[in-house]
Amino acid sequence: MTEENGKLGTSTITQIGLLVHDIEATSQAYAEFFGMENPEWFWTDTVDKALTEYKGELSQARAKLAFFDMGSLQLELIEPDHHPSTWREHLDAHGEGVHHIALIIEGMKEKIKVMEGQGMKLVQKGEYTGGRYAYMDTFQQLKVMLELLENDAQ
Amino acid sequence: MTEENGKLGTSTITQIGLLVHDIEATSQAYAEFFGMENPEWFWTDTVDKALTEYKGELSQARAKLAFFDMGSLQLELIEPDHHPSTWREHLDAHGEGVHHIALIIEGMKEKIKVMEGQGMKLVQKGEYTGGRYAYMDTFQQLKVMLELLENDAQ
Repeated sequence: MTEENGKLGTSTITQIGLLVHDIEATSQAYAEFFGMENPEWFWTDTVDKALTEYKGELSQARAKLAFFDMGSLQLELIEPDHHPSTWREHLDAHGEGVHHIALIIEGMKEKIKVMEGQGMKLVQKGEYTGGRYAYMDTFQQLKVMLELLENDAQ
Repeated sequence: MTEENGKLGTSTITQIGLLVHDIEATSQAYAEFFGMENPEWFWTDTVDKALTEYKGELSQARAKLAFFDMGSLQLELIEPDHHPSTWREHLDAHGEGVHHIALIIEGMKEKIKVMEGQGMKLVQKGEYTGGRYAYMDTFQQLKVMLELLENDAQ
């Protein structure tokens, strides 16, 4: 990681995440409005597999997810369940709308450490098939939450 | 415009717009964090040139803008002045954070008409050097405001 590449080694935004109350209704609205195929939503993994940690504690929280490709960017719709998570907290506090922008990084532990050194706290992390994610509280500095995504080499 | 292409003829998101109170501070935070050059901000044009209309009436409103290229996506920072605008209204109501996602379209008048037929109201429009924009109230359907951008053929 060089200084020229910044703290994350990338500045490519790959995803925007939107919180919604009803993933089927919003998914259909996107599909119809943009003339895209309506993707099937799916549940995130259970805690035994996802190892979901919210504010440092394991959480049963899960969410329904649906993805649209919109140019080189992925739009993610997120309908959380009622267990504690950044998704549920943000939806309850701010209502529907943008939750995060995501970047694909390498070296999750190191990057989290670097960001914590910048006063950006780890909010939630977990595993998914083929990789892992971390939501970082970058709101004060960057005015939006960042999600780090790390995909395993195939 | 075919049905397959949806209402706008495109589904490529080209920009995310963020409202901020202090464009210089946030711009510097982005530049340092991501290792990008700190761009110079500039004022949007005055109303005689921009023909800014907010809720159907001419508005003196202007904003300081700064742009970062983050992959194929442009991140736009927006610090509005205190005249009536969607920027000022949204910043006062919701604080700093994401204001819109933008798409580049062709045929501004036709696209606005199509969207109004879908119950999506025109909130604000204006001209800039080389093109024009329109903010559409798509929150109810799409959970985020859309901005249409039309650039003149060069």
